[in-house]
Amino acid sequence: MKHIKIYAIIFAFVAFSCNDKATNSAEDNKSQNTEMADPLPSWNDGATKTAIVDFVTKVTTEGPDYIPVEDRIATFDNDGNLWAEQPAYFQLFFAMDRIKELVSEHPEWKTTQPYQSVIENDMKTLMSYGEHGLIKIVMATHAGNTVGEFEQIVKDWLATAKHPRFDRPYTDLVYKPMLELINYMKSNDFKTFIVSGGGIEFMRPWVEGVYGIPKDQVIGSSIKTKYDYNDGNPVIRRLPELNFIDDKEGKPEGINQYIGKKPVFASGNSDGDLQMMRWADSNSYPSFQLYLHHTDAEREWAYDRDSSIGRLDKGLDEAVEKGWTVIDMKNDWKTVFPFQMND
Amino acid sequence: MKHIKIYAIIFAFVAFSCNDKATNSAEDNKSQNTEMADPLPSWNDGATKTAIVDFVTKVTTEGPDYIPVEDRIATFDNDGNLWAEQPAYFQLFFAMDRIKELVSEHPEWKTTQPYQSVIENDMKTLMSYGEHGLIKIVMATHAGNTVGEFEQIVKDWLATAKHPRFDRPYTDLVYKPMLELINYMKSNDFKTFIVSGGGIEFMRPWVEGVYGIPKDQVIGSSIKTKYDYNDGNPVIRRLPELNFIDDKEGKPEGINQYIGKKPVFASGNSDGDLQMMRWADSNSYPSFQLYLHHTDAEREWAYDRDSSIGRLDKGLDEAVEKGWTVIDMKNDWKTVFPFQMND
Repeated sequence: MKHIKIYAIIFAFVAFSCNDKATNSAEDNKSQNTEMADPLPSWNDGATKTAIVDFVTKVTTEGPDYIPVEDRIATFDNDGNLWAEQPAYFQLFFAMDRIKELVSEHPEWKTTQPYQSVIENDMKTLMSYGEHGLIKIVMATHAGNTVGEFEQIVKDWLATAKHPRFDRPYTDLVYKPMLELINYMKSNDFKTFIVSGGGIEFMRPWVEGVYGIPKDQVIGSSIKTKYDYNDGNPVIRRLPELNFIDDKEGKPEGINQYIGKKPVFASGNSDGDLQMMRWADSNSYPSFQLYLHHTDAEREWAYDRDSSIGRLDKGLDEAVEKGWTVIDMKNDWKTVFPFQMND
Repeated sequence: MKHIKIYAIIFAFVAFSCNDKATNSAEDNKSQNTEMADPLPSWNDGATKTAIVDFVTKVTTEGPDYIPVEDRIATFDNDGNLWAEQPAYFQLFFAMDRIKELVSEHPEWKTTQPYQSVIENDMKTLMSYGEHGLIKIVMATHAGNTVGEFEQIVKDWLATAKHPRFDRPYTDLVYKPMLELINYMKSNDFKTFIVSGGGIEFMRPWVEGVYGIPKDQVIGSSIKTKYDYNDGNPVIRRLPELNFIDDKEGKPEGINQYIGKKPVFASGNSDGDLQMMRWADSNSYPSFQLYLHHTDAEREWAYDRDSSIGRLDKGLDEAVEKGWTVIDMKNDWKTVFPFQMND
């Protein structure tokens, strides 16, 4: 259980700030780059966009920096990198909603911690139970069913749940520039993978539709599973035991386990991605490291070194030191969320 | 360590029968199907070939049985299914050769079991140490290095080691009809995966070149790994501890963990593949289960119910019962190994 401590980060979360509505970016539509050839229309021209395009052009053009198609591995963190992660990881909202739904089957939760604090929306008390309490919340909500059942539960939740600030489905809170970047990489024959601390089975139900990334190109944290039969029908049961935490050192370990190659392009937004960045940086091919810096309190959120969610501290220093590319969300992105284009 | 017992099968092996040279199939070249349109020229016409082609045609043609491209998942066992597995799993030959090479660094092995028995080619004594002894052999030869070092060790071994019966590199002992089948599936937009009880890191160094299957589409047994640094350079260390055994129940578990979808096409040759077959068989899409029955003692080997390697007993019964397709190697394949075509 030594891994437990690491991605307890998934449940470290800050106070809710639910009522500040998104500000529309009126000029988004006006400034939309309509140049046919621009693969990244939601990115402002500048050093960041140029660095990305130059790298992709360089390694896909015959020459000393050329990378064969089979080695064009691109890895993307998810929370805070492809979709938002504030005011708390979306998977935590899912777990809390599940607790509230399952309490009818577990009336004892009403008077048993840490469940009681979830039911009463008492975040302070919930956090006082620390990692151990949060693990209990995960196991109570993510295990004890089959893989097929859990997939349906996630889909049903996504179809109805709304983000507290934007009052929209969580899958609306994906970053338009990053969708363009994924497509740009794919159109240049990069194989794109998600490498997230989030639950692999929590992501798989929707990543294919939302990002166009196949389920088998998703790496994430997982609980143990067991093949079994229900009335003679094969099922895979989800067990209340952690299997793998895909964060920090876990990211290169997961990349090795699932992909078996070093990335040449790594994209993330927190210190939890730093080992993945270094792993890509050690590639014998030319490689590219891309950090997303959340600098846009108006359209999204601004946070870095002091945030308990998606902390970017050591990674920011190392990016400067090593010359990695850092996206300044406020200045580099014309649009953040797709819905802001039409507002 | 509950999983240990399962794929000890990897080291269950029978007496060596090294001196019976391969018999050439003189008519192979003559009977080679030169029809342009035939995607499976090494397969004799008959019920097996027809069943495969009919299935692929049916599910790739618009209609009630059509399967969308993103759900065309095909899984192939490796040992005894894509390449041979007699007179012992090739990975065991690798491990034994490694013991003999590493004994210079471990002189104590000369008088310590189970290593001594390997050094003295004393299979009977080696087997008397059972699973526990074999696990020791694996850990002594597969762990204690980095992922990059181990990949090079495997490549170096493959470049020099020869199969005892055919006196050829082990990678020559792939089945030509199965190479054609993989290509046929790929050309019909199936995503092809290897799902093997063999070691994932033992397969990855060569599957891309030999089968045209990318490293990230290989699922296998694994030991634990740890991200670390060598003089500041990121490495992944291979630890002497089992992580996952991809056999029997482990196959659907591994498929779920790596792919996240049920296969629609499953191909294997032993009872170790039976759970994978059932998992594919439970797909809500039309599915196809293909068992390879080793019936060709002349060109390859003949074994099934009583073999300690690649035993096919329950699987054979269930295939008949459920109407799965069974390849009769002797009668269904014009050629077994590619080199036999030119002999």
